[in-house]
Amino acid sequence: MNNYSLGIDFGSTAVRALLYNITEGSILGTTSSPYNMGTDGVIQDPDQPLLARQCPMEYLHAMERAVTSLSEKHDLKYVVGIGVDATGSTPIPVDAELRPLANQARFANNLNAHAWMWKDHTAHKAANQITELSRKARPDYLKTVGGAYSSEWFWAKILHCAQTDPEVYEAAATWIEFSDYIPAVLCGISHHDQLKRNSCAAGHKALYHTHWGGFPDAEFLDKLHPGLSQILHSLPKTTQDISETSGNLCAEWADKLGLAAGIPVAMGMLDAHSGGLGAGIKPGTLVKILGTSSCDLALGNNQNMGLTGVASVAENSIVPGHLGIEAGQSAVGDLLAWYVDTLLEKRWTHAELTERANLLKPGETGLMALDWNNGNRSILANPMLSGLVVGQDLSTQNHDIYRALIEASAFGARKIIDTMEIQGISIEEVVCCGGITHKNPLFMQIYADVIGKPLVVSTEAETVALGAAWAGAYVGMHGEIGFEALQKSVSEAEPIVYQPQSDSRIIYNQLYSVYNQLHDVFGGVTDPDKLDHIMKTLRTFKNEAKTKQKP
Amino acid sequence: MNNYSLGIDFGSTAVRALLYNITEGSILGTTSSPYNMGTDGVIQDPDQPLLARQCPMEYLHAMERAVTSLSEKHDLKYVVGIGVDATGSTPIPVDAELRPLANQARFANNLNAHAWMWKDHTAHKAANQITELSRKARPDYLKTVGGAYSSEWFWAKILHCAQTDPEVYEAAATWIEFSDYIPAVLCGISHHDQLKRNSCAAGHKALYHTHWGGFPDAEFLDKLHPGLSQILHSLPKTTQDISETSGNLCAEWADKLGLAAGIPVAMGMLDAHSGGLGAGIKPGTLVKILGTSSCDLALGNNQNMGLTGVASVAENSIVPGHLGIEAGQSAVGDLLAWYVDTLLEKRWTHAELTERANLLKPGETGLMALDWNNGNRSILANPMLSGLVVGQDLSTQNHDIYRALIEASAFGARKIIDTMEIQGISIEEVVCCGGITHKNPLFMQIYADVIGKPLVVSTEAETVALGAAWAGAYVGMHGEIGFEALQKSVSEAEPIVYQPQSDSRIIYNQLYSVYNQLHDVFGGVTDPDKLDHIMKTLRTFKNEAKTKQKP
Repeated sequence: MNNYSLGIDFGSTAVRALLYNITEGSILGTTSSPYNMGTDGVIQDPDQPLLARQCPMEYLHAMERAVTSLSEKHDLKYVVGIGVDATGSTPIPVDAELRPLANQARFANNLNAHAWMWKDHTAHKAANQITELSRKARPDYLKTVGGAYSSEWFWAKILHCAQTDPEVYEAAATWIEFSDYIPAVLCGISHHDQLKRNSCAAGHKALYHTHWGGFPDAEFLDKLHPGLSQILHSLPKTTQDISETSGNLCAEWADKLGLAAGIPVAMGMLDAHSGGLGAGIKPGTLVKILGTSSCDLALGNNQNMGLTGVASVAENSIVPGHLGIEAGQSAVGDLLAWYVDTLLEKRWTHAELTERANLLKPGETGLMALDWNNGNRSILANPMLSGLVVGQDLSTQNHDIYRALIEASAFGARKIIDTMEIQGISIEEVVCCGGITHKNPLFMQIYADVIGKPLVVSTEAETVALGAAWAGAYVGMHGEIGFEALQKSVSEAEPIVYQPQSDSRIIYNQLYSVYNQLHDVFGGVTDPDKLDHIMKTLRTFKNEAKTKQKP
Repeated sequence: MNNYSLGIDFGSTAVRALLYNITEGSILGTTSSPYNMGTDGVIQDPDQPLLARQCPMEYLHAMERAVTSLSEKHDLKYVVGIGVDATGSTPIPVDAELRPLANQARFANNLNAHAWMWKDHTAHKAANQITELSRKARPDYLKTVGGAYSSEWFWAKILHCAQTDPEVYEAAATWIEFSDYIPAVLCGISHHDQLKRNSCAAGHKALYHTHWGGFPDAEFLDKLHPGLSQILHSLPKTTQDISETSGNLCAEWADKLGLAAGIPVAMGMLDAHSGGLGAGIKPGTLVKILGTSSCDLALGNNQNMGLTGVASVAENSIVPGHLGIEAGQSAVGDLLAWYVDTLLEKRWTHAELTERANLLKPGETGLMALDWNNGNRSILANPMLSGLVVGQDLSTQNHDIYRALIEASAFGARKIIDTMEIQGISIEEVVCCGGITHKNPLFMQIYADVIGKPLVVSTEAETVALGAAWAGAYVGMHGEIGFEALQKSVSEAEPIVYQPQSDSRIIYNQLYSVYNQLHDVFGGVTDPDKLDHIMKTLRTFKNEAKTKQKP
């Protein structure tokens, strides 16, 4: 007899359900259902371009549609456990019974009573306030979040609500992360006293850390906003990771979803981190989730707690027993999309530019760029930074710049890895997920050549939902199958691996030192070294590349 | 009875003849005739992309065609004097009777025996050698040429010929500038002992200076190449400016051209400098000749001899009695042409980009660029420098960058003027000539706003040939009408003047300090100041511009 687990993945625009055969180590099927709200599932406000909200009720409807559609082809009675991941930080204001305020008639049209989606940036001033106060009064806080608290995160959003919408703020008994809300609903938890909070969202987004005894202290919170510390009464002293359960599936939702009541529901986690688990993250492997931006995940140990230059570190946030490390670049796909869609108004295609850029050798563009068009997340944590291209002459063509942007992105990726390695995190290989990894071999080869490590293309398209399903499998089997075993259980096709080419390495290693100078000077890391050699250096590389034969 | 003068202007691709009525101060007519050789009048060599040569005989044929075509409509018997300008430095190797070596059968197919056109850059190594030796042994030489000797100039070309083609080098009795060759031919001068050299080409291109007694000394030349000093025997101790005559029109050429024999022929001058004269250059007026690159001309006095940061200074080179100052930007029209033709492959037009760029306010692009895609002529004299654009975000569009390039060009222009002003040259207005001055009002307004001085558009299309005609008038009237009076004699239509707008000035003055930082750091002028504020500063300007109403 087979045991199944169910992974439910709440993305930005839709929910995906994945049915996993634990016994055989295989994916039985997936379904997905979009959020029927706003534009592509996101509620926006023309007067507030930074706002992005969602309706919590629609999360539940979409989940119901996705899971019941799975049951049309599969017998869900074999499901022994459920795992859940969701976007975040996506806090939802709720009453004491954990009912979203958006459900109340008086708040039905108030977007502040809805879910504050991860990419909502309305709280940027509040975030600065948290960063400033931390710098003065709690410098340790900043160490775990890469040096700056983000407007995307839990406390910034609550603080911004307190400052701008007292009615919603006063009405909220607590705020609950999307990735905690879903397990609570599934388990029928009806009071915040019984609510557990997952270590992944709490650690990466809400300044939770055992080192200072949990969430931020009352004095700190009240200095941000008098009375803000009241929320601490609804927050637990400890958090739980995905090896633990949120509770057991309640009768109401068992009935709605066609599952057996009472099966364990794992603690939730953030979607990117679930993707890291699903892509096979382990010590020595960096998982890069490449999309519009990049999310880089790695594992460390307690000695790496003070790691600087990453977005955040949190205990047990990806694989239980390890420190979860999250970093990222603010624009990867977005950088190339900007060039083709916005700058060139799509008069060229990515394929055309790539084909021509592929004929160039490393250094041949004579260009160097910084990939900061959307600021720099890691390692500078500065959203005010912007892009740069240097080295143009009168023969510089479009595909030269396109290649330079890919190279800049690769140098940025290397900078993150280097920053981890010099602090004792060893990275032996990089596993990449995301559409671009399959679509653009030039992009992948440049990344491998610049980074200097094998780049493995993840062949599994469903890494995020798969990670959630493994969490469900773990709790469903009461810990009999460990996460490492689960990661090895899926027999994948032979993965595509991009190996660094030594000729290119020699050039890119030298160009990386040019990149580093621009990075450090424009990033404000160091007082600048002399930069007046840069244009000449790039020209020399260009001339040398032009006189060489294509290997 | 009217007195006429004839101006003959030898450009890069054609010769123009202009008939001027001295008595009435009016242009009677112009004709032009292209050089029938090579591609667009330039002989090239596919194996040597830096080479650009012309056939001296064809210069004479083209002149004959142009002048005789002028005689079809006008009676040239009233011509009392001739003035000549020509491109340069365009040295021509000749025998002792001043016959171009190219006329000899053995050299007919040897391009080194032809005229070495100004834009021939084959002598770049020789130029470096001259710069290096000057730096060590004759630092004063570099002061008059802006810090570096150019591959375009007289001595570099002769040295390169000595090093690479001893046969031509040995056969040459002397080398003669294009702008000296034509007057010599017209006057029937048949030996280099009788040849005068014009102060304009000698001073700006051949290191002639009264301060060190004329042309470079024998010891210096022989260190460059043993025996090179032999040429000094054919070079005069003094030079002559356009208030003096080369001689009188010989019977042979009077007959060919339909002119009266014996009329005076003025000393030649370089074409750009003739354009400065024709555009009304005077103390306090900077003339900008805007084309693919820019040539900036101003007048100074002997106290300005050591002026640094300009391409070159030479005594009496534009208006007799004044120090001629020449500076320039390596890419102006070429910079915008690069963007539209090479980078965008003409998928947009200049007009489309200008129309959209015109909707932006100063600072609104959030960008800053350096206009060094073709190196920097003034004030850094460094051809190895390259372009830079900084400040891009994910919303940056094509016309933002186009505007940033215009602004960069304007900042570069201001830098030249500032560099002159801080050394005591007062500039009150800028007179602009060239196609772009009539075609692109946005370009002109940005220049006025950045420079902060009135920008006068020269309404006279024929400034270069007109300057030559005035030189002819001066010698033809035996100095009775001075150059200032000649400049005032032409009653022009009311010129278009672009006045600086004070709102824009405030922004551009601040952005200029950002430009200066990039300029000085990447140009190697100073150890860099901190640059890490630059991206943030540009973003602030962008945001402020966006929230302001368009004035």
